[in-house]
Amino acid sequence: MSTPAYAALSATTPLAPFTIDRREPGPREVLIDILYCGVCHSDIHQARDGWGGSVFPMVPGHEIVGRIAKLGNEVTAFKLGEAVGVGCFVDSCRQCPSCEAGEQQYCDFGMTGTYNSFERDHADRRRQHRSRPTYGGYSTQITVDAGYVLRIPESIPLDRAAPLLCAGITTYSPLKHFGVKPGDRVAVVGLGGLGHMGVKLAAAMGAHVTVLSTSESKRADALALGAQDFAATRDGEVFKKLAGSFDYILDTVSAEHDYNAYLNLLKLDGTMVLLGLPEAPESVAAGVLIRKRRRLAGSMIGGIAETQEMLDFCAAHGVASDIEVIRMDQINEAYERMLKSDVRYRFVIDMASLKG
Amino acid sequence: MSTPAYAALSATTPLAPFTIDRREPGPREVLIDILYCGVCHSDIHQARDGWGGSVFPMVPGHEIVGRIAKLGNEVTAFKLGEAVGVGCFVDSCRQCPSCEAGEQQYCDFGMTGTYNSFERDHADRRRQHRSRPTYGGYSTQITVDAGYVLRIPESIPLDRAAPLLCAGITTYSPLKHFGVKPGDRVAVVGLGGLGHMGVKLAAAMGAHVTVLSTSESKRADALALGAQDFAATRDGEVFKKLAGSFDYILDTVSAEHDYNAYLNLLKLDGTMVLLGLPEAPESVAAGVLIRKRRRLAGSMIGGIAETQEMLDFCAAHGVASDIEVIRMDQINEAYERMLKSDVRYRFVIDMASLKG
Repeated sequence: MSTPAYAALSATTPLAPFTIDRREPGPREVLIDILYCGVCHSDIHQARDGWGGSVFPMVPGHEIVGRIAKLGNEVTAFKLGEAVGVGCFVDSCRQCPSCEAGEQQYCDFGMTGTYNSFERDHADRRRQHRSRPTYGGYSTQITVDAGYVLRIPESIPLDRAAPLLCAGITTYSPLKHFGVKPGDRVAVVGLGGLGHMGVKLAAAMGAHVTVLSTSESKRADALALGAQDFAATRDGEVFKKLAGSFDYILDTVSAEHDYNAYLNLLKLDGTMVLLGLPEAPESVAAGVLIRKRRRLAGSMIGGIAETQEMLDFCAAHGVASDIEVIRMDQINEAYERMLKSDVRYRFVIDMASLKG
Repeated sequence: MSTPAYAALSATTPLAPFTIDRREPGPREVLIDILYCGVCHSDIHQARDGWGGSVFPMVPGHEIVGRIAKLGNEVTAFKLGEAVGVGCFVDSCRQCPSCEAGEQQYCDFGMTGTYNSFERDHADRRRQHRSRPTYGGYSTQITVDAGYVLRIPESIPLDRAAPLLCAGITTYSPLKHFGVKPGDRVAVVGLGGLGHMGVKLAAAMGAHVTVLSTSESKRADALALGAQDFAATRDGEVFKKLAGSFDYILDTVSAEHDYNAYLNLLKLDGTMVLLGLPEAPESVAAGVLIRKRRRLAGSMIGGIAETQEMLDFCAAHGVASDIEVIRMDQINEAYERMLKSDVRYRFVIDMASLKG
């Protein structure tokens, strides 16, 4: 099916209208009419080949929300018209220990990214089929295996649900995995797309949340999002004052910054989880970990079951993303604004603007 | 009591005979006749002020084994002549959450090191009494609060028990704390004083142990100590071959090395624990942690109760250190040999050589 989309043709060209082909859904697949797609920072990194290895032409977008338009005849989990979502991956090998444990994001043979990736070789699911690139949510329709599709609870506005598929699960998963409990002191470093979800989710879990952001300008927002406290890190005194204060730190920053300064804010046995991916390594002083048995960890999105759990948690706790809805043709301008942190807190593309 | 010792008078002078004063034991203290003292790499770091802040004159030594020579009248836990040990610290504030949890090594107000530290101010136990330096085990006697003294089980030869007080607990504690189970794949990086204890203890816990050492020369020793496998890391291919292989890595190396190369050897959810303290920070790539939800942690010796548990574990499993016994006057030569990794695996000073 010929489908309108927006694509980057190279790392240096702005995104522009493009047409892709979506397959008819197979017996276990669904076709989704895309209503909204969130705009993730990693869309920019990948469209501009900031991490290397980008595949062009590229149709970005992995925070997809829409409605079921067609169902394969073996699909029983969804019905026509149902609100559904697709996140950062659309397939995985389904046979490695991570896949069997429902943690497809850590598939031993690499998850199939929703875009900038390749479909799997059906003869050997551990391999990619290098002639079939995947295209993401900056388009009006997508065909996905039903096992990789999420239900969007009715109480969450669909546009505000889109960023949950990446920013939501990326912050929810480490909070759950590393065991955040009510009353725990959690710091969220950086108040952007990830950070604002980290604050909402940690607060909904009952944690005492502090936002650490470079400038004072985000204090009011931080408190409105659910944080109990805020500290502007441009004031270096903060690092003395808050030393040994936190059980957990969610570090959402992908710009260069000093891990050691933040690690020193952890209590004994505290954990700092890296969610942002700086383009160069940072330095770590062994002593800051050793002195208080601290841990520096990383975490990457979440599995399908955990993503559904997160969506249901958001519905139960009235959590959704704070967004600014844009038209598809505003995407290049949106990227420029994101690079200046000028968005509160996620752009979401209204896909009707591409159809119409 | 005037007590013979060996001391460094400055960061640049060799250790030489010195006389210190040991106090008569108070009601809750014991006087120990020191029989053996292990020689830890940190003795060299501190005697040469490699970490900064050293206090001179310095009597090093925190792997102390001896027998009770006098008992304060409130001490009921020990009897005259009993074999006992003293490790890296001889006091702590006793009122912070870490002390109350029996993890005195993480005392919020700083443990009192067995040497290169100051006694606590009895008026305010959170403070140090800067006029009363502590002197370590390169001496014939020491007076210690009974709450900071360990029982040495009879089945462990006393000279081979000494290094358990630091090298033993430093490797035992993270293996227990981070949950090593029978069958887990554990790599030990570096086969020195710490590493050889890491191998013995992890093997005794039922783990499958691999030693990663720069050169082939330690293969036979590694296997004899209880490792099932060995890899020489000078061959860079090892880092490809063993990628994603280990549940845990104990990193005992304090020389400069590439954390990322080792982190990449961890499985999903694997933990690398830093035990060695390089003098400069190392670089860490966020991606290597994020891609497999890996953790980089640190750990520092262990609390008094856990040290006793470790000694009892060693007795139950027939574990003791592999040592080379030296005379006190061989200490400077021993330091030079340690700097060349020419010791299998710990020098232990026979304190009779200082008395006689």
